[in-house]
Amino acid sequence: MKKHITLIALLFLSLVVNSQIVYHDASAFPLLGKATQNTATRYERLPDSLKNISRKPLWDLGKNSAGLAVRFSSNSTTIAAKWEVLFNSEMNHMTPTGIKGLDLYCLQDGKWVFVNSGRPSGKVNTATIISNMEPQEREYLLYLPLYDGVTSLAIGVDSLSEISQPKVDLPVRKKPLVFYGTSILQGGCASRPGMAHTNILSRWLNREAINLGFSGNGQLDLEIAKVIAAVDASMYILDFVPNATVAQMKERADQFYTIIRSRHPETPILFIEDPIFTHTRFNKVIAKEVKEKNETINAFFLSLKNRGEKNIYFLSSKNMIGSDGEATVDGIHFTDLGFMRYAELLYPVIRKRMK
Amino acid sequence: MKKHITLIALLFLSLVVNSQIVYHDASAFPLLGKATQNTATRYERLPDSLKNISRKPLWDLGKNSAGLAVRFSSNSTTIAAKWEVLFNSEMNHMTPTGIKGLDLYCLQDGKWVFVNSGRPSGKVNTATIISNMEPQEREYLLYLPLYDGVTSLAIGVDSLSEISQPKVDLPVRKKPLVFYGTSILQGGCASRPGMAHTNILSRWLNREAINLGFSGNGQLDLEIAKVIAAVDASMYILDFVPNATVAQMKERADQFYTIIRSRHPETPILFIEDPIFTHTRFNKVIAKEVKEKNETINAFFLSLKNRGEKNIYFLSSKNMIGSDGEATVDGIHFTDLGFMRYAELLYPVIRKRMK
Repeated sequence: MKKHITLIALLFLSLVVNSQIVYHDASAFPLLGKATQNTATRYERLPDSLKNISRKPLWDLGKNSAGLAVRFSSNSTTIAAKWEVLFNSEMNHMTPTGIKGLDLYCLQDGKWVFVNSGRPSGKVNTATIISNMEPQEREYLLYLPLYDGVTSLAIGVDSLSEISQPKVDLPVRKKPLVFYGTSILQGGCASRPGMAHTNILSRWLNREAINLGFSGNGQLDLEIAKVIAAVDASMYILDFVPNATVAQMKERADQFYTIIRSRHPETPILFIEDPIFTHTRFNKVIAKEVKEKNETINAFFLSLKNRGEKNIYFLSSKNMIGSDGEATVDGIHFTDLGFMRYAELLYPVIRKRMK
Repeated sequence: MKKHITLIALLFLSLVVNSQIVYHDASAFPLLGKATQNTATRYERLPDSLKNISRKPLWDLGKNSAGLAVRFSSNSTTIAAKWEVLFNSEMNHMTPTGIKGLDLYCLQDGKWVFVNSGRPSGKVNTATIISNMEPQEREYLLYLPLYDGVTSLAIGVDSLSEISQPKVDLPVRKKPLVFYGTSILQGGCASRPGMAHTNILSRWLNREAINLGFSGNGQLDLEIAKVIAAVDASMYILDFVPNATVAQMKERADQFYTIIRSRHPETPILFIEDPIFTHTRFNKVIAKEVKEKNETINAFFLSLKNRGEKNIYFLSSKNMIGSDGEATVDGIHFTDLGFMRYAELLYPVIRKRMK
């Protein structure tokens, strides 16, 4: 009888121990998606040297962790996370999960598959992302928040399991894709971080992607061109037209381009038109603005071609996010439907041209 | 000189007056999407008679305005709205615009086209939905919040324009579609109200749709079957499996069906399987639960067929929301990508069978 009780107690104890989650600081694992390692803290995007150089809103947006992702492997049956965000941002047209949540993918047969999101509760967060898995070794990619910063991150696994360095070098980190742009490029308004098109394309192409999207501030600031040029990329995708004014493009687009091109004479550079925002069917002022901006970027691209620039490409925004008008939340910012359509448009263009 | 000044002043005055927005109570215009007119207040879904009969969470969810929409026409250059919500709900996996915002569509060449959303700021809201339109007569459909109630709603138009009753009887109100189900059916987690699949299908089929989705509470409560049976529908779509337990289905599915069928011997009734939630690739407990539920609903459908029931149909959840695993925000609830895919799957099935 006493033996039985001891056995049952031991079994119970083993279950309890196994169901305990132990947290490991994510700083032990590779971080993808940074243009530079010279940042003030780990999970931010702009070099510390720009602190007193960049405009304040642009500098602050550099602290948003859009496009950053942690790579690890584990045989745990549960994956959890604890994280603290910097601003505790809120927006009425984006989910808190997209703004300040996490998003976990797993490598299966060479493809990255959505596991689940880590849903936030506020500034300090704990979430079980997935549980009840079979205890087998898996490769993971954990995307960080799109519209907030991360001041600390720990990954939780079963106490009896292991978390370790990735065993597979995917996505390929050599010659990443570098994307520059606006609020849309930063991931507004994906439902979860993995659905920003830069993250979708990184998975589909299995190549690291660097997201230099700055909400409202993709205005061709020349110090950002220098940050871009410091990366030995497979392709530079310049997607700034929604934020840059006609005057800014006329004044700075050539300098911005030249800063990148002078360091990388052969690397493909893709320019993208302003999307035909869905509400331009109705709002005639915005329709006119989009038309004028697209005339400007077309004329600029033609001028580059005319002076003999090579390895430059142009993507029209025709049917960029479909023709049914349904792919935005507010006429402008893409939903997951819009990001999926945009990724489908960009995928063959980038795959064909990237180094 | 004096004449000129007077003229300029008059022109200026006309501009100022024209740019003033005048609000009109929406109760003057048709409200689509209600199963019953016997509600305590205008913008709720369940008859007042169920107040002390239905379970409390179910009753409260009846106050969410999912699927309700106001029809009007106007020649205004701007459409604005003032609205107050009942609960001021928040969720971390859905946008505030989807939860408690508005969503405006316009009829163009017989098709409903997204104009823009009305984004909420809290309990009491004012939003300009669209501006800078040409001043021409248009037909509008304004969707109400999916996960909150509406206690008041007024539509704003230019002071010199008109707002009036719809001139066109679209969507067709005779023989609406009636949908019964869960949080997903209620629209979780569309980015804006128009992207719930019941609303998408209503636009595509140009038929009024009634949304009887109750988050977490699509549990075959028999009084809801009576509410459904009171509607002379073109089709009944029963999509409860994500919420109903195996035991509840075994106990009540037949009674639930019979309440509807006995009043409508000929009307098509469609049963839908549990979606294969994207996280079931990893979470083996949920995978088993989905499998058992789908075995139960399949067996129930077969039993109906075997006893000679007519005009009943069954939709498998195979590839319901695609095969890439990307269509949910949390493994369960559909994003706009998921709702679009689900609507594309359901559209031909309903179009073929509906009366």
